[in-house]
Parts: sequence; structure tokens; C-alpha cells
Amino acid sequence: MKTLASFVLAAAAVAASAPASAQFAKPEDAIKYRQSALFVMAQHFGRVGAMANGRTPYDAKVAQENADIVAEMAKLPWAAFGPGTDKAAKTGAKPEIWTEQAKFKEHSDKLIAETTKLAAAAKMGNVDALKAAFGPTAASCKACHDNFRTQ
Amino acid sequence: MKTLASFVLAAAAVAASAPASAQFAKPEDAIKYRQSALFVMAQHFGRVGAMANGRTPYDAKVAQENADIVAEMAKLPWAAFGPGTDKAAKTGAKPEIWTEQAKFKEHSDKLIAETTKLAAAAKMGNVDALKAAFGPTAASCKACHDNFRTQ
Repeated sequence: MKTLASFVLAAAAVAASAPASAQFAKPEDAIKYRQSALFVMAQHFGRVGAMANGRTPYDAKVAQENADIVAEMAKLPWAAFGPGTDKAAKTGAKPEIWTEQAKFKEHSDKLIAETTKLAAAAKMGNVDALKAAFGPTAASCKACHDNFRTQ
Repeated sequence: MKTLASFVLAAAAVAASAPASAQFAKPEDAIKYRQSALFVMAQHFGRVGAMANGRTPYDAKVAQENADIVAEMAKLPWAAFGPGTDKAAKTGAKPEIWTEQAKFKEHSDKLIAETTKLAAAAKMGNVDALKAAFGPTAASCKACHDNFRTQ
């Protein structure tokens, strides 16, 4: 059993040992972080998609809750694609992420924009609005995977 | 390269193949999901902690952004501790999570409450408020780890 002091120190050390720009103590942590954020996002996006595609019954409240989480999670992964995080651990990230940074940022900005629209559509409480917003969001995921992730 | 249709179907299948109560297609996904959410939370909590402990310079905006993410992430992992997710993949989850569910819920509710207070404290924009809220939040993490996670 750790003491609380050592627990707090361990938590604080995560950030303290990292340069402010990098935010992560180790490149492996950055890779794990972005994969984690994307996995959480994908789970919630899948639930929205199942409703948008009629595979599970539409529930406006559940759609909204999940779409809100998707939109929040969509903001997170990008800070974790910093220098030196291209191959420190197993990753599907293509080198183009770092050699075509402006294009990569266009794609991540597009996802943030589309997921924000998806969350707004989910708030409207009708499945047609959800369906209309789901397609472009999924297309945004796919465009980035096609360009920047090994399949 | 996947077609968009197959991509959308793959996303939707995540949820469609799961019973509504379970939310996850496979127990392994639930385990990966809760570990992912907790890892993302820990990264942001570490950044708040570094400021609360004076290891990185206090920046009110950064503290607030990170504390907000901590509070949002703190809500997520618990739905992924469903039946059958005790050992389907590598996990530090102790069996007590499932045999002492009321106690486990007390701990997760406590974390949600403390991280909500942490986010409110971070919004006040002074480091003393942040310090005061950080300790009880870290204690809440630790109490749950001590009781329900193998070290």
C-alpha cells in the first residue's frame, strides 16, 4: 500500500518531469494517451452510430450523452502527437503526421468541428438530425485514418 | 483502404453487437475502455497535481482546463466494470469490485464528487483553492486503489 504522500508525488511527477511543451513524461505515455482518448471516443461514437444506423433503438438522451462525450474526447488526442512520439511504442501513426503537420491539423480540426456539430444535432432530439450529422463525422474519422494511420 | 460504408458499419457494430445493458461488444473492450479513461484522467490529474504541489508554475487557465477534463473523465470508467469484465484481459481490478459493489460505488461516487469540487476550485483562479481541493481528490483515488486495485 502506497502512502498518500507517495501517491500524490507519483501523480505530480507525471507532469513535473515533462517539459511544459511536451506535457507527457515519456513519449510512450503520449502514445498511450492518444490511443486511449481515441479508443474512448470510438466506443461512444459507435453507440451514436448504432442509433443513427437503426441498429439499436434511438434514445435521444443516450444519443446526446454519447455525442457530448465524443465531442469532448475529439479535442484531446492531438497534443499527444508531439516530436519524438512517432515510434516510441507500438503505434499505427504514419510518419506523414510529422512531415505534413498542416494537413494533419486540418484533419484534426475537421474532426473537432464535425463532432461539435454531431453533439449539437444530438441535442435536437430527433434521429434524422443525428443521421445527417453522423455521416460527415464518420467521413472525417475515415479521411484521417486513410491519410495518417496504417491500416 | 476501407470504404466509408464499411467504416461506418464497423463503428456501428461496436455497439450493435452488445446488449444494451453491457454497452461493450466484448469484455476486453470494457477493460480497455476503463483503463483508457483512467489513464487519460491520470495524465490530466498529474498536471493539476504538479501545479498544486509547486512542481510546475501555477497557470490558472491550464489548471482549469485540466481539472475540467479530470472531472469529465471521472464519470466514465464505472459503466465498464460490468459482469464478466473481471478477468477477460489483463487487469488490476480486484474481485472485490464485484463482490462489494455498494462499497465500490461509494468510492467511484466519491471520486466524481471530489473531482467536481476540484474543477470548481480550479475555476476560482487561485492556487490555494487548487491545493485545498487536490489533496482530498488524490486521497479519493488512493482509497479506491488500496481497496480495489492490485498494487
